[in-house]
Amino acid sequence: MEPSVPDHFERMWADLAPVGRSSSSGGYFRQPFTTPERELAAWFAEQAAARSLRLEADPFGNLVAWWDVPIVPDEMAADPADFRPSDRGLSLPGVVTGSHLDSVLDGGAYDGPLGVVSALAAVDRLRERGFRPSRPIGVSVFAEEEGSRFGLACLGSRLATGATTWSQARALRDRHGVRLEEAMATAGLEVDDPQPWLDASRVECFVELHVEQGRDLVDRGRAVGVASRIWPHGRYRIDITGEPNHAGTTRMEDRKDPMLTYAMTALAANKQARVAGQRATFGRVETTPNSTNSVPSAVTAWMDARCESEEALADLVATITRQAEERAERDGTSLTVTAESVSGAVDFAPDLAARIAGEHEGGDWPFIPTQAGHDAGILSMQRIPSAMVFVRNPTGVSHSPAEHAEIADCLAGVDALAETLERLAR
Amino acid sequence: MEPSVPDHFERMWADLAPVGRSSSSGGYFRQPFTTPERELAAWFAEQAAARSLRLEADPFGNLVAWWDVPIVPDEMAADPADFRPSDRGLSLPGVVTGSHLDSVLDGGAYDGPLGVVSALAAVDRLRERGFRPSRPIGVSVFAEEEGSRFGLACLGSRLATGATTWSQARALRDRHGVRLEEAMATAGLEVDDPQPWLDASRVECFVELHVEQGRDLVDRGRAVGVASRIWPHGRYRIDITGEPNHAGTTRMEDRKDPMLTYAMTALAANKQARVAGQRATFGRVETTPNSTNSVPSAVTAWMDARCESEEALADLVATITRQAEERAERDGTSLTVTAESVSGAVDFAPDLAARIAGEHEGGDWPFIPTQAGHDAGILSMQRIPSAMVFVRNPTGVSHSPAEHAEIADCLAGVDALAETLERLAR
Repeated sequence: MEPSVPDHFERMWADLAPVGRSSSSGGYFRQPFTTPERELAAWFAEQAAARSLRLEADPFGNLVAWWDVPIVPDEMAADPADFRPSDRGLSLPGVVTGSHLDSVLDGGAYDGPLGVVSALAAVDRLRERGFRPSRPIGVSVFAEEEGSRFGLACLGSRLATGATTWSQARALRDRHGVRLEEAMATAGLEVDDPQPWLDASRVECFVELHVEQGRDLVDRGRAVGVASRIWPHGRYRIDITGEPNHAGTTRMEDRKDPMLTYAMTALAANKQARVAGQRATFGRVETTPNSTNSVPSAVTAWMDARCESEEALADLVATITRQAEERAERDGTSLTVTAESVSGAVDFAPDLAARIAGEHEGGDWPFIPTQAGHDAGILSMQRIPSAMVFVRNPTGVSHSPAEHAEIADCLAGVDALAETLERLAR
Repeated sequence: MEPSVPDHFERMWADLAPVGRSSSSGGYFRQPFTTPERELAAWFAEQAAARSLRLEADPFGNLVAWWDVPIVPDEMAADPADFRPSDRGLSLPGVVTGSHLDSVLDGGAYDGPLGVVSALAAVDRLRERGFRPSRPIGVSVFAEEEGSRFGLACLGSRLATGATTWSQARALRDRHGVRLEEAMATAGLEVDDPQPWLDASRVECFVELHVEQGRDLVDRGRAVGVASRIWPHGRYRIDITGEPNHAGTTRMEDRKDPMLTYAMTALAANKQARVAGQRATFGRVETTPNSTNSVPSAVTAWMDARCESEEALADLVATITRQAEERAERDGTSLTVTAESVSGAVDFAPDLAARIAGEHEGGDWPFIPTQAGHDAGILSMQRIPSAMVFVRNPTGVSHSPAEHAEIADCLAGVDALAETLERLAR
């Protein structure tokens, strides 16, 4: 007897469990173009081969495994190295589903991989039912969705769609100074004048399944929901310079201590976000020289801010910046704020979302907004009709080793995704 | 013609200038048992040999170059490897002067090296004058005075005097997890059941010349001063744990963010120190996982606090701890404060200080207190009569690439030290 879809799902989940996992925290370190992430890419290629899906590997580290139509067995073994979008030889744009396999630093198991594993399991479900798609179905893995290494979230989908150009991205550096181009070359990717390829002629629509990163579905008592929109959000680097000095002998009134400016800025960001009903976080800070008995010369910190509207985001960042500058003035430090990336609001295609959400057993799947950026948001902004299916997260915790989803909810997600693909690719 | 003492001084200073210097900041990275610091130790051995001083290298990385009495040429070439305190064969305890060659991270050129170079130049000055000491004069270099690598300041003098035992120190780790014992072994030091050796039978008194780390001498218009006392001081590690989560999707009110607790603690420390007329600094902070789009799971930070009295220090730390705990309660985080090292007040031997300070051309050298820890403080606490000579610092800036002393003031310091040694070793 063939293994069932739940068996497939659990086996894939077990494959991924140990890759890039910290033995101390239990969290994941799957940064792009590192050994764990490359191992995940190789695993995905195996899964594609096991299902006779045709693997396309683009120059940016993104992968798509295609269920082509018509399915002609001797076309399946095409060498991915030969891939050129222009001579794909398949004229119909496809229905694509997938997510990413990279993680934040010390992240959870679900953010990303759940969408990839569910997509493969949904293909299994459709085949089990004997479904014959009338257009190609693609299962995608986008690179560096989290921006955990090069600081720019959704880097893979940005490059594939041309939202970010290769000339803008190639010089990005990780925190050890390694350039994106070098990291890719080390991982064996050949990046010689690469071009964007992902557009409406290739992808008719994109559906990303993702673990929910809040508690809306818990509050509603539902296993599955559909995204309505993504809040605008941005990453801002705050550089504060002061005057390095001896921590013991320098009178308090003689100091120009950037740590104080930073501390007040972090508290101000929290307070302003609370007051405005928005979100602002300082999760990363670097101190120079980071020495116990020295007043620091510099502090650099990164603020993540997300708001309901673009106006609210601009207001929030302006208010925090003004308070930070006032404090810098008092501290005798200097401060600059640099927007490293800012993404506008994404309103997912209403027709597509309604088609996905409507008419299920037990009523429509609920619409919920999200404050997290996703590749689906990038594709949507590049005029690819896109949608997201969320799977209930019992605690709402994400970007953390404690991130979780119940297996029953994950399997409900697989069924929801299979049903969605069936509607879209019939 | 023999080079003059100023020539000697400037040549030594030029020798040291490039060692461990950052080409970007111009500051120094001379952490113990690293290549630059070992290069400095080798340089010191050469200087000792060039002056026919007998070099003692103890098992902890400390060095003493001895001008023995009586000076018998064929005794000078003793192999340092043969050194055992018990069979030194010289019965008189010596007058020792010196400082350290290690630096804080991105430190200045003067803190430490000025005392070593001035001690060698003072020996040159005394020999130039034909001075014949009636007791040995030692020039010392103590290891890891700054505590920049293993977190315990004055580690070399603590181990040499037994203020800290080897069994307490051996498991200290640097920020990369390297144990002290391993670092020493890598540097070629043999540490097999080493014993303290520095006591009153070996050292009659200790005088450390140091660049001033404040502006008292500038305010007084004097080139040279004498230390009255060292303020009590301590290093405290603050460990704050929260709940890692997604920086976008987690509602502000659902967070347990340790960064907020840290930020308030850093501001509270500054405010309380200012109010009390004391000193408190957060110069080092480490965030886990240090990711822009994650609420951190943990923040660890180090507080340096220094006060006029031990009671004031205890009060200051208690007040800051109480405020930090109250904030942790509000933030839903947990917080512990660990005293990594606390040093009581040091009142330098008044007789010795008076003997050094008194009766010079232009009046007595002024007495000034310091808030910085020094090896002279450790020796003093171990009942070795100790004193410090300070050389004017035009800006007061220290622990910084901008640390400076004018050459004329440095040479005045050499003369002051030579005069002091002459008085003490006559």
